[in-house]
Amino acid sequence: MTPEEFRKMGYQIIDWIADYRAKVDDYDVMSTIQPGDVRNKLPKSPPESRETFDSILSDLDDAIVPGITHWNHPSYFAYFPGNAVLSSILGDFLSSGIGGVGLNWQSMPALTEVEEVVTDWMRQMVGLSSEWDGVIQDTASTSSLIALLCAREYGSDYSQMNTGLQKSDSPLVVYSSIQSHSSVKKAALLAGFGLDHVRFIDTDENYALDVKKLESTIKADIENGLRPCAIIATTGTTSTTAIDPIADIATIAETYDMWLHVDAAMAGSAMILPECRWMWNGIEKADSIVINAHKWLGVVFDCSLYYTRKSEHLIRVMSTNPSYLQTAVDQETKSYRDWGIPLGRRFRSLKLWFLIREQGISGLQERIRRDMENAQWLFQQIEATPEWEVVAPVQLQTVCVRHIPDGVADDELDKHTLRWANVINSSGAAYLTPAILDGRWMVRISIGAENTTLDHVKALWSTMQDAVRSTDE
Amino acid sequence: MTPEEFRKMGYQIIDWIADYRAKVDDYDVMSTIQPGDVRNKLPKSPPESRETFDSILSDLDDAIVPGITHWNHPSYFAYFPGNAVLSSILGDFLSSGIGGVGLNWQSMPALTEVEEVVTDWMRQMVGLSSEWDGVIQDTASTSSLIALLCAREYGSDYSQMNTGLQKSDSPLVVYSSIQSHSSVKKAALLAGFGLDHVRFIDTDENYALDVKKLESTIKADIENGLRPCAIIATTGTTSTTAIDPIADIATIAETYDMWLHVDAAMAGSAMILPECRWMWNGIEKADSIVINAHKWLGVVFDCSLYYTRKSEHLIRVMSTNPSYLQTAVDQETKSYRDWGIPLGRRFRSLKLWFLIREQGISGLQERIRRDMENAQWLFQQIEATPEWEVVAPVQLQTVCVRHIPDGVADDELDKHTLRWANVINSSGAAYLTPAILDGRWMVRISIGAENTTLDHVKALWSTMQDAVRSTDE
Repeated sequence: MTPEEFRKMGYQIIDWIADYRAKVDDYDVMSTIQPGDVRNKLPKSPPESRETFDSILSDLDDAIVPGITHWNHPSYFAYFPGNAVLSSILGDFLSSGIGGVGLNWQSMPALTEVEEVVTDWMRQMVGLSSEWDGVIQDTASTSSLIALLCAREYGSDYSQMNTGLQKSDSPLVVYSSIQSHSSVKKAALLAGFGLDHVRFIDTDENYALDVKKLESTIKADIENGLRPCAIIATTGTTSTTAIDPIADIATIAETYDMWLHVDAAMAGSAMILPECRWMWNGIEKADSIVINAHKWLGVVFDCSLYYTRKSEHLIRVMSTNPSYLQTAVDQETKSYRDWGIPLGRRFRSLKLWFLIREQGISGLQERIRRDMENAQWLFQQIEATPEWEVVAPVQLQTVCVRHIPDGVADDELDKHTLRWANVINSSGAAYLTPAILDGRWMVRISIGAENTTLDHVKALWSTMQDAVRSTDE
Repeated sequence: MTPEEFRKMGYQIIDWIADYRAKVDDYDVMSTIQPGDVRNKLPKSPPESRETFDSILSDLDDAIVPGITHWNHPSYFAYFPGNAVLSSILGDFLSSGIGGVGLNWQSMPALTEVEEVVTDWMRQMVGLSSEWDGVIQDTASTSSLIALLCAREYGSDYSQMNTGLQKSDSPLVVYSSIQSHSSVKKAALLAGFGLDHVRFIDTDENYALDVKKLESTIKADIENGLRPCAIIATTGTTSTTAIDPIADIATIAETYDMWLHVDAAMAGSAMILPECRWMWNGIEKADSIVINAHKWLGVVFDCSLYYTRKSEHLIRVMSTNPSYLQTAVDQETKSYRDWGIPLGRRFRSLKLWFLIREQGISGLQERIRRDMENAQWLFQQIEATPEWEVVAPVQLQTVCVRHIPDGVADDELDKHTLRWANVINSSGAAYLTPAILDGRWMVRISIGAENTTLDHVKALWSTMQDAVRSTDE
C-alpha cells in the first residue's frame, strides 16, 4: 500500500469511524449475537492473494459490527467508563502512523521524552508531589503485578533476585481487601507468592478495608514466622467504588516496613478534582500507584499510568542491558524498557497528550463533575422509591442497586436481580453489569460514558422500573 | 470533539501520515537530537483550557518530528525490521476508533472471535498443526514471561499456585543459550526462579545452543537436587539470527519432562516460507512459541503471537473469575483475559487481519524472500572484500560484520568498530546497531524494512566502505 493509497483509504476509515460515532446511539448497546456468529462469517483460511480494500470494509460491516458492544454509547453503564475521546484517538493514530518501536532513548527519542512530560503533567493534575515518577503500562493488572514484583524484591537487598523465592524460609505475604480487584490475586500468584500467602482482609460497612483487621492479621502472620511484604489498597473498588483509608494503611505499612501499592485504576481520574482528593488522603506515603487514564478520563485503551516514589528500585528489578541495546547516551537518558515488563513500547503518550491539550484540565474536570452529579441524581431517585435499595455509598459515579419486591424469598432475589438486568441488556436500551456483594447479586450502574447526559440517566431509571415490572409478569 | 470535527481533523492526520511516509527517505534515519531537546520544547505543565488542534499539530512538527528515529526509512538496518505496513495501520485505526475494551466475550464479541480466526490463519501460514491455539500478547518479553509462568506451574499439580515457590525444597531451573534474548533472563527473574537457577548454555561455532552441554548441565543439576523446569530455545537469535536445534532440544525436554518454549520472535515470520521451516524442525514437540508479527511480517507494533499446545494449562495459570466479569455465555466462549497478564485488551487482531488480507500470503512471502536475497547479496560482497569479515552465518536477513584493518591491535578493533558504525548513524544515511559477539563488538545489519530494495543495500555497502576509510583519517 502506497502513501497515496493510504491517503484515499485512510479518508474512508476516518469517514467510517466518524459515521459510526455519530450514529452510535442507534445501536443496541450490548451486542446480542450468539457465540460463533462472527467466526462463522469469516473464512477459515487466510487468502493466498491480496484482496481489495472494499471487500475488507464490507466484511467489517457485515461480520464485525454486529459483534461490537458499544462502549461509547451514551447508555453504556456496564463495567467502567471505557471512554475513547476522539482527540485521544487522533493521537493514537499518529503513534501507529509514525510506526517504529521504543527500545531505548535513541531508537525513538521523542517517545521517551513525551512520555516523561505527559506523565508529569498527569502527576500535577492529580495533585501528587514531585517525588513521583510516572510511566505508561498497558493495564492495571500489569501495574499491580509490577508493584508486587517490586515489593517482593524490596528490603531483601536484592538477594531474592539471585536465590529466587524458592529458598526463602519465611514466606512473604501480601494483603488487600476482599473487595480488591481480581487482578491483585492474579498478580500475587504470578509473582510467586502463592495463594497461601495472600490475605483478603474483611471490609467495614462501607466496603472499605478494615484497618484493625489488617493489623491483627499482620501481627498473627509475624508470630507464625511469616514476613509481611506488601499491602494493596484501593481507591475506588470495582464492585462499589469503595475507598480504603490510605493514611491509616500507610501507617501500618510504615510500621511493618511493607510496600504500599494503591490501586486507583478507576478513581484516579477523579483526583483531578481537588474536592475528591480526600479519597486518597495519605497517598504521599504510598510506594506505587496505578491510575488508568483509559477509563473515566477518556484516553483510548490502553494507557495505565504507574507512579512510584522508588523508580531506582523499579529499574533495578526490571533492568536488562544487553550489548545490542546499549548506546552512547544511556547514562543521560531514560530507558522505559526498565520500567516495566515489555522491552518494546508504543508511542502511547501521544494519545494522552492530545486528550489533555484538546480538553484542557477544566474540560476534563467538568465532565467528571457532571458524571458524579448524575450518579447523585440517580441515587436520590432510587433511595426515594419503594422496593429499591442502594446497597453501597455513592461516592463517585457508580450506583449499586437491588430491587427487592415485597415478600421475595432470599433465594429468589438473586434470580430476580439477574433477570431484570438481563431484560435491560438484551433489549439493547442500556447495558449494565451485575456483581456479587455480601454473597448476593446486585447491579452496578457505572455512569460516565463521554456522551452520557442526565437525560440518559433519567431514561435508564425509567427502563429499570419497566424492567422489574416486566419480570413480574 | 464531535464526530464532524473528528472527520475534519482525521483527514488532516491522514494527510500528515501519508505525507510523512511519502517523504520518509528525506530524513536522517536516526534522530540526531540531544537528550532533553524534545522535553525542553514542551510546556512543563498541562494547559488549564482547551487548545486548538492547529497548535497541537504545530508542536508535532516542531518538537516531536526531530526526535523520531525513522523505522520505516528504507535505509533502516538497526535492531530488527519494525515494519508498520500501511494497511495494518488502517486496521489499528479501527481498533482505536471503535474504542471499548475486551474483558470477556460479551463485552466485545467480535474482538474475541476475530482474534480466534486470525491467530488461526497465522498458525496455518507458519505450518503449525491444529494442536496449537493462539493469542495476541504485546511483546515477546511478555510472551516469554508467560511461558515461564506456565512452566513454573506445570507438573506441580498446581500446588505451587498455593504454596508459591517460597516453600519449594528443590528449586526449579531454567535453561537457554548464552545467545538468547535478554528478556529470557528478565522473565526468569520476574517469575521468581532466581538467577542462581537460570543456566545460559554455551553455543556452537554457529552460535546455536550446544545440546550436549545442555544435557550435561541438566544432569549435573539433577544430581545436585535441583529440578529442571524449562528450556527456552531460539529460532533466530537477536545478535546473529542463530538457529537452535529444536528437534534435539525437544528430545531432551521430553526426557526430563521439561517445558519447551521457542522464541521465534524475529524468525517466526519467515516460517510462512516452506523452504525456511527446517529452521524449527521439531517445533511440534514444543509447548509454546512466540512469533512477533510486529517485526518482519509488518503488523504495526504491538502484536506478539503466543501459541501453545497446552491452552487449558495456560488458562488455569492465568484465570480469574470474579462475579463482575461473569456472563451467561462464559462456558461456550473464550475469555482471552485468561490467556495472558492484562485483563482488558485492544482489538489488535484487526491490524493483523487487514495486513494478511491486503497483502495475501503470496505478497508477504515475496517480501520476505526479497529481504533474504538482499542479505545474501550483501554477504557475498563482504566475503569477497579484503579486511571485511562476516562473523556469523547469514541464514535469514541479518548480516553480522567486522571491518578488520591490517595490523589493528585487539583493543583498537572495538573502538574502530563502534567508530565506523557511529559515523554512519550520525550521518543520517543509514542506521545500524552494534552488538558484542565472542566478547568483541561487531555490527549487525538487519535488512527488511518494508521499502528496502537491493539498491538501498548497495548504497549501504558503499556507505560502509566510505565510513571505514573516513575513520582512518
